[in-house]
Amino acid sequence: MDLHKDERLDYLFFDQELKIIQSSRLFSFSLDSLLLAAFVYVPIQKGRLVDLCSGNGAIPLMLSRRTRGDIFGIELQAEVNEMARRSVNLNGLGERVKLIQADLKEAPERLGHESFDVVTCNPPYFSGSAENEMKENERVAAARHELYTTLEDVVSVSGRMLKQGGKAAFVYPVEGVFDLMMLMRSNRLEPKRALWVYPKAGREANRVVIEGKKDAKPGIRVLPPLIVYNEDNRYTEELREFCDITSTL
Amino acid sequence: MDLHKDERLDYLFFDQELKIIQSSRLFSFSLDSLLLAAFVYVPIQKGRLVDLCSGNGAIPLMLSRRTRGDIFGIELQAEVNEMARRSVNLNGLGERVKLIQADLKEAPERLGHESFDVVTCNPPYFSGSAENEMKENERVAAARHELYTTLEDVVSVSGRMLKQGGKAAFVYPVEGVFDLMMLMRSNRLEPKRALWVYPKAGREANRVVIEGKKDAKPGIRVLPPLIVYNEDNRYTEELREFCDITSTL
Repeated sequence: MDLHKDERLDYLFFDQELKIIQSSRLFSFSLDSLLLAAFVYVPIQKGRLVDLCSGNGAIPLMLSRRTRGDIFGIELQAEVNEMARRSVNLNGLGERVKLIQADLKEAPERLGHESFDVVTCNPPYFSGSAENEMKENERVAAARHELYTTLEDVVSVSGRMLKQGGKAAFVYPVEGVFDLMMLMRSNRLEPKRALWVYPKAGREANRVVIEGKKDAKPGIRVLPPLIVYNEDNRYTEELREFCDITSTL
Repeated sequence: MDLHKDERLDYLFFDQELKIIQSSRLFSFSLDSLLLAAFVYVPIQKGRLVDLCSGNGAIPLMLSRRTRGDIFGIELQAEVNEMARRSVNLNGLGERVKLIQADLKEAPERLGHESFDVVTCNPPYFSGSAENEMKENERVAAARHELYTTLEDVVSVSGRMLKQGGKAAFVYPVEGVFDLMMLMRSNRLEPKRALWVYPKAGREANRVVIEGKKDAKPGIRVLPPLIVYNEDNRYTEELREFCDITSTL
């Protein structure tokens, strides 16, 4: 095993087969990514999927459990992307999961315009409040803040890469969902499905997972509410069921 | 008691003091109105509130339990409005609740521009599919469809009647929520709070109650999920608690 300093090997949440290299210094994936990978509609037998801002490759790895199609990832930071590639190889997925180090704005040119069935992204957010965190750790900050990219870039690139009828799915803080929806519509990605994620029963939602369909008519559906933790601060059964993507294929 | 043919006297849901005249032929209020009246922020001691498309007066009556302010209602259909006025008098609220028969587009002129703290509306919807229902019952159809008014009219009038910082709250089918939010923003009513209403556990949401604040900054909160019926098809305890507006004053 080829683990560097600061790295550890984790399972991908409830999946006891997929392994992923994490790094406290560089990048660790979050529940948000799992929710997104479990939520998005995917073609099962074939197709082209791309994850933008793919970090340590959590979403591409998880998507590989739900589709036999070709999965791409785009990550700007070379060191993070190199770590992600080692995770892909570790799981024997090198044929089907291609992780590319690039600025996401180059992605349509490099991977193809209007040629994808699915785009996913857990985009950076908290724009503008990154200074303090930056001083401590530039790479973690880059993943969490809009330092090198903006939400506009993410949604615009998603729109350009998708085929007509293709799906783009994002996970985002509730507070910004309306701006995200506006960007989706203006980039021909009409919001069609949303999932509100509530940390506990009786608490306000803190995340939304939302899917748009390229050139679709307006009209959105809202899935049953997803509550993350029960009273004992353990994952709820409904969360475990929702995120159980290990047996799909 | 002054009940006409086709009319009956009901309690306002869980409130065993307020009574309301209902009519199978003209208008009966729904749970939607109760949710809206329970959800909206209201000033308690004083203020001006107006309910658009007020029907048989359910929302103005319910609001009278939450605020000592002056409450107005606007209803186009004279016969429905006359029934609503009898309900107001029956509850001894004639001093504080004024129900006016008018086209809502006349409301700002008649009641005042930028002079309200709160606007509520359970607007008509299902635009365009009303023909069959119309043949059977024109008045019920008018309440449920955009025959005499449009969502644009409702939101535009709401924006014009509210003071800066005032609240406008609407209840609407989930499918159209994004269009509603767009109209709210373009009429200076920035969406700030939303409640998704799920008919049962494990089911998709079918209603949203949403509140905008005039000239506020973007950024929305999503309240804990509200589930209407339990497995036995009875109202859930959380619904009863949410709608318990009888003890507010």
